[in-house]
Amino acid sequence: MRAALDAAYCAAQAGEVPVGAVVTLGGKVVATAANAPRTLHDPTAHAEMLAIREAARILGRDRLEDCDLWVTLEPCAMCAGAIAHARIARLYYGASDPKGGAVEHGPRFFAQPTCHHRPEVYSGIGEGESGALLRDFFRERRT
Amino acid sequence: MRAALDAAYCAAQAGEVPVGAVVTLGGKVVATAANAPRTLHDPTAHAEMLAIREAARILGRDRLEDCDLWVTLEPCAMCAGAIAHARIARLYYGASDPKGGAVEHGPRFFAQPTCHHRPEVYSGIGEGESGALLRDFFRERRT
Repeated sequence: MRAALDAAYCAAQAGEVPVGAVVTLGGKVVATAANAPRTLHDPTAHAEMLAIREAARILGRDRLEDCDLWVTLEPCAMCAGAIAHARIARLYYGASDPKGGAVEHGPRFFAQPTCHHRPEVYSGIGEGESGALLRDFFRERRT
Repeated sequence: MRAALDAAYCAAQAGEVPVGAVVTLGGKVVATAANAPRTLHDPTAHAEMLAIREAARILGRDRLEDCDLWVTLEPCAMCAGAIAHARIARLYYGASDPKGGAVEHGPRFFAQPTCHHRPEVYSGIGEGESGALLRDFFRERRT
């Protein structure tokens, strides 16, 4: 989660909502990404999506059933859907997101009967630092 | 929808689940894509995602509030989330998808309070041809 938090700081410095994500395989980092929709002109460029896509590219396959995803914020519906499509084994996330999250809020996607793969989910990891980073980012934007 | 259906036929010929998508702006095609997760080694490479990403790249912005999306199958949670993030104005889709759809099935994402943008939705357009293409594809796979 340290690497994901570092990526979130990078996102903030680029003026993006500070979220970072890492895909690991056997405890080793395969791909790291920072949230970047504005920078990349890509509405799908959340940190999780970029990390999953990069890991799949590196591993040369579209299923990552032996991989874990670490992300600093509760994934949204788009990212939860991508996690299921990629067959991610374990999802570790930091801060919960009552406004846009889709794991413990809103659609609760992994609990839906139309969800074809449910990762093991561990939340609250690095929650304090991730939440503070997000709060600082939005506070600065408002002033 | 004709161009989206043609893209779906291309997906089938490449051995991918036959789904196609088109993004239009002012009635003109900006981007067309065929479903390609296996070909591209990218679990996020649904037709809608590729068409939205390509349109955003071409237009040089991450919000497509003046664009419409045409897709041959009811979008899944990942794609519905991307449609909301991209601020797509109108969604036109063909066949409904009780197993994986997230518009009229499962999470019914656009009806969730955590969904920050709801496109106008028109379903059943080209439904017969899209459904037949999908049924033929899966029938051939099973035999």
